[in-house]
Amino acid sequence: MSEKKLRIGIIGAGRIGKLHANNLISRVPGAELAAISDVYEPAAKELAEKLGVKVYSNDYHVILNDPTIDAVFICSSTDTHSPISIEAAKAHKHIFCEKPIDHDLDKIRAVLDEVKKAGVKYQVGFNRRFDRNFKHVHEVVKSGGIGDVQIVKVTSRDPEAPPISYVKVSGGIFVDMTIHDFDMVRYLSGSEVVEVSAFGACLVNPEIAAAGDVDTCIITLKFANGALGVIDNSRQAVYGYDQRIEVFGSKGCITADNETPNNTTLYTKDSVSKEKPLWFFLERYNDAFIEEEKSFVEACLNNSETVVGAFDGLQPVLIAIAAKESCEKGGVPVKVAK
Amino acid sequence: MSEKKLRIGIIGAGRIGKLHANNLISRVPGAELAAISDVYEPAAKELAEKLGVKVYSNDYHVILNDPTIDAVFICSSTDTHSPISIEAAKAHKHIFCEKPIDHDLDKIRAVLDEVKKAGVKYQVGFNRRFDRNFKHVHEVVKSGGIGDVQIVKVTSRDPEAPPISYVKVSGGIFVDMTIHDFDMVRYLSGSEVVEVSAFGACLVNPEIAAAGDVDTCIITLKFANGALGVIDNSRQAVYGYDQRIEVFGSKGCITADNETPNNTTLYTKDSVSKEKPLWFFLERYNDAFIEEEKSFVEACLNNSETVVGAFDGLQPVLIAIAAKESCEKGGVPVKVAK
Amino acid sequence: MSEKKLRIGIIGAGRIGKLHANNLISRVPGAELAAISDVYEPAAKELAEKLGVKVYSNDYHVILNDPTIDAVFICSSTDTHSPISIEAAKAHKHIFCEKPIDHDLDKIRAVLDEVKKAGVKYQVGFNRRFDRNFKHVHEVVKSGGIGDVQIVKVTSRDPEAPPISYVKVSGGIFVDMTIHDFDMVRYLSGSEVVEVSAFGACLVNPEIAAAGDVDTCIITLKFANGALGVIDNSRQAVYGYDQRIEVFGSKGCITADNETPNNTTLYTKDSVSKEKPLWFFLERYNDAFIEEEKSFVEACLNNSETVVGAFDGLQPVLIAIAAKESCEKGGVPVKVAK
Amino acid sequence: MSEKKLRIGIIGAGRIGKLHANNLISRVPGAELAAISDVYEPAAKELAEKLGVKVYSNDYHVILNDPTIDAVFICSSTDTHSPISIEAAKAHKHIFCEKPIDHDLDKIRAVLDEVKKAGVKYQVGFNRRFDRNFKHVHEVVKSGGIGDVQIVKVTSRDPEAPPISYVKVSGGIFVDMTIHDFDMVRYLSGSEVVEVSAFGACLVNPEIAAAGDVDTCIITLKFANGALGVIDNSRQAVYGYDQRIEVFGSKGCITADNETPNNTTLYTKDSVSKEKPLWFFLERYNDAFIEEEKSFVEACLNNSETVVGAFDGLQPVLIAIAAKESCEKGGVPVKVAK
Repeated sequence: MSEKKLRIGIIGAGRIGKLHANNLISRVPGAELAAISDVYEPAAKELAEKLGVKVYSNDYHVILNDPTIDAVFICSSTDTHSPISIEAAKAHKHIFCEKPIDHDLDKIRAVLDEVKKAGVKYQVGFNRRFDRNFKHVHEVVKSGGIGDVQIVKVTSRDPEAPPISYVKVSGGIFVDMTIHDFDMVRYLSGSEVVEVSAFGACLVNPEIAAAGDVDTCIITLKFANGALGVIDNSRQAVYGYDQRIEVFGSKGCITADNETPNNTTLYTKDSVSKEKPLWFFLERYNDAFIEEEKSFVEACLNNSETVVGAFDGLQPVLIAIAAKESCEKGGVPVKVAK
Repeated sequence: MSEKKLRIGIIGAGRIGKLHANNLISRVPGAELAAISDVYEPAAKELAEKLGVKVYSNDYHVILNDPTIDAVFICSSTDTHSPISIEAAKAHKHIFCEKPIDHDLDKIRAVLDEVKKAGVKYQVGFNRRFDRNFKHVHEVVKSGGIGDVQIVKVTSRDPEAPPISYVKVSGGIFVDMTIHDFDMVRYLSGSEVVEVSAFGACLVNPEIAAAGDVDTCIITLKFANGALGVIDNSRQAVYGYDQRIEVFGSKGCITADNETPNNTTLYTKDSVSKEKPLWFFLERYNDAFIEEEKSFVEACLNNSETVVGAFDGLQPVLIAIAAKESCEKGGVPVKVAK
Repeated sequence: MSEKKLRIGIIGAGRIGKLHANNLISRVPGAELAAISDVYEPAAKELAEKLGVKVYSNDYHVILNDPTIDAVFICSSTDTHSPISIEAAKAHKHIFCEKPIDHDLDKIRAVLDEVKKAGVKYQVGFNRRFDRNFKHVHEVVKSGGIGDVQIVKVTSRDPEAPPISYVKVSGGIFVDMTIHDFDMVRYLSGSEVVEVSAFGACLVNPEIAAAGDVDTCIITLKFANGALGVIDNSRQAVYGYDQRIEVFGSKGCITADNETPNNTTLYTKDSVSKEKPLWFFLERYNDAFIEEEKSFVEACLNNSETVVGAFDGLQPVLIAIAAKESCEKGGVPVKVAK
Repeated sequence: MSEKKLRIGIIGAGRIGKLHANNLISRVPGAELAAISDVYEPAAKELAEKLGVKVYSNDYHVILNDPTIDAVFICSSTDTHSPISIEAAKAHKHIFCEKPIDHDLDKIRAVLDEVKKAGVKYQVGFNRRFDRNFKHVHEVVKSGGIGDVQIVKVTSRDPEAPPISYVKVSGGIFVDMTIHDFDMVRYLSGSEVVEVSAFGACLVNPEIAAAGDVDTCIITLKFANGALGVIDNSRQAVYGYDQRIEVFGSKGCITADNETPNNTTLYTKDSVSKEKPLWFFLERYNDAFIEEEKSFVEACLNNSETVVGAFDGLQPVLIAIAAKESCEKGGVPVKVAK
């Protein structure tokens, strides 16, 4: 094991920042949490003190200007992801950035350029790639276990719709929610999405329609390698967070199912019942977050490629933009920009 | 139980005609198999003799002209379905007709008119509706068990592609194979399909492309009630006949899985394995065929509605035509004709 | 296919006699149901007329004396099984006899002798051997798929206790209920049971204890080949008829699960539920009954060995007697008589 | 959350000591690992340095004599468990002791007395009680979810037999391996075992027989509340660590299955396969170890009862002794001493 620790600063002490901070402290061997910043200083202070981190600030430049810090986790609000990414790259910090990098393609491309120029590591927070089930599917597909990929299917349904105030600023379901699934289909198929057709509907909450968004959608995809894909989304699956995948190919098919609190089965005179899928995404993907953090830290310490690079941050946004356009046009196929 | 038997003539002694004949003889209480015809008389004779049926002929008019015969099963070649249906209706026979009624919409409509005029029972051979799993899903959905239907998903993959000679005359995958799934989504959703978008590809066998058809496709659907649907098809699933469904709604979700030869699990040092899905459709849907026959016979004897009427024979063809057009146009949404 | 039909007489037109009669008429190709007898003639008459069988009687000798009849199904009351078996063997009829042959070992042995002397086929109604799941387990074990058998486990629980009037004359749980499981462990292990230890309790209905019986029991077994086995029984599983098996060996383990009305899964906000096991044994083992009848008819027509012979009728009774003694002695191991 | 930390010393830096040390450092919020001892000082030193623990020694009295230390984890060799427990109790430390407390009943009882006198917390390392699946079963049973308990079943098979050198000093399978299952049946049934009957065999490795032990066994149990139980053990399940339970009662049945590396299913032309059960007990019960540590720390900090007390350390040894005697006597039932 490497003796060298990766000194990390966390920018943004909200829900996801706290999650990363806690994991980095206790679950990621090569990580050393060195500093925490948040525009609201008391949040940074509280988290720092709880975890025994000495440096905290309301100004992330304290982190960027600290030459002993090797890497940053950008967990601040979405609109700051790309500017901080660029500043961090210029400061020669390795960068872990929560998704999405930006909604604006030019800004994402600017990040890509700067990262490349600086030669730093860049990882986007597509944590689901690190889920034990989905990762295994990816590995089986990659190793040829199902032959040539022909159909990729993703079921992705949230347990409940976000507040309408959030929906209004979310950028729409495709950028906000399906973006994870767009990353997943790329990860599973090993190919780029070239064209999409999206059917959307508002079946959960009419306020979502009033906000100009849909809450239920089915997106069909064409991949560069000729395969087809389909994603179905709902903002509300009353039985829990429904996250399943299936990859079908010339030599077989592989599926991954939901995770549950336990694997018991109860037989009574009324029914035979199993546990419902885990409800909360932080619980569902708890181990996946830890694995993505470990993976990033190892890539930095060992100077290897990150599993989800800056380019992987760009592609799902391109697909989301095409899906949104297709949905608005009633399902007319739209090519994904290059 | 009614003492009255329904006297039935079978027109067409090929694979599906034999299947119905055998079942009617031994598994359908109210049925009496009275006559068999086939354009190739030795086929009719052989089957009739094996089953102890006294009347056989190379001319189906022998059946239509027999006043003691109450009903016919039309199991002849597809192009004869609609003309024989019309003749049979005029002869006041109840009619069970294998799918599809016709590829030509006008001819189907002519059948509908004639059947209505004659007041006879008409049932189309969409046997999958009688599968115990799918039927249960239908019943749960219909009884409100999952609330309002929002998403309907059908996975439908054949174990192996038909001979290329068959593909050439099949009318294309949408009319030949997906037509069952178009019936299924109507049955499950309880609503009509109003628009479709189809992505197709030829990934199994390039000869299929050469014949102007696709072998892999994903069809997205919009229903009149606002729900969305998706069907994925492949002509070749190497692990067997893959027939699964899922209906998702405002109060839950229900799924039906494949049938297997047995439910054992084998644990060895190499793997934990279960049986593959049943391979052959006649085996997979064996009980469903019997149930559809019983259902038809009961409808005739009790003068009740058939579960799958003539209108149900028309709709899937309309959807298939729209899907084919959408696929040929690269996925552009196409409205289903009324 | 053999053109020759096996002409069969059914002795006893009660529940199980009716079941066999109906199946032989419609589901067993080589069978011809020629006559039905019942001590209560109207029962024989009603069944015969319903099935179009011309000969019926209140005297089974009508069947035994008919030289055109090849085989009999003995479905009369248990106390008549062995005497009719002997008479039928002397009349040179092949014999299918419902279980148990008798509770009296000497009478069973007399049947064995007479059957051997007459050279007729003899099959005992251990229908569970013909269940598709259990049969597959047997075949995998027999073919070495799990190596040397080390542990055999049978879970066997009825959905509800029989009437107390029945319990009183049943001969006790081991002879009445576990006898099927004793046959099953022999079938699965491919070895004879040499010693048993039984713990019993009365937990379902105190009247059963008052009748001198137990309703819950666990029986441990030693096999001649060194393997161990365990059966657990309950007279009442409120969720349905619970019939599962497991065979563990040096190279793996194989399990068979319950059968259910369908394989759907329903997800709601309250639970994820599957169907309960089938409740009624005639439904659960419906196909197994048909398979055992086919198997018997084929053995007779082809002059091959029956799958469950007279010796297989004797062994479970020997084990049941030992189990009963062990249970009465509080679990002291008892050797199975030879 | 309590600000107070529980200062802990670990006695024994072998495999299980390391496991607890690592977990206490990183996964148990209220714990502070203060010191480590091992008779082999370099082991203590290495572990202490790796984890940043300042105090280490080859003498556990350094821990017992440290007034700032609140609790000890006794992870040393089995023969030292009871004497160190007594010394620790006298030193007024809370005690977490790995199983078994001792093989000698008098020594266990001496520990119980001393713990009671000192008024310290005592927890025995029956980690499986903290497994999410088994815990859920326990809770459902306890809450009456299956009514009155009637049958408890435990399947417990190791993936491979330990070295023969270990078998020789293990005290035999009942004390060494089944002891966990004896704890489990008490935990699940909520009742004490009053009598056992054990059938044993040596089917895995004849050297185990030569060492006077068995490697395959089935133990039947009677509980004080009238329920029955059965445990089956094997030293070698080639497909992995097989740990399943089932509790059957008057109102239903609940089962818990094995844990697997992931929940994917792979369909190929050869089979439909799932992952094998996890192989290594430290992996299988990883989360359970963390939960038991948390539970102990919380009981100490909150002055509440431990979930597995000293009495719970005694009972399984009493049952194991009875089981061993029964097995040696060929399965004769033996009452469990009080």
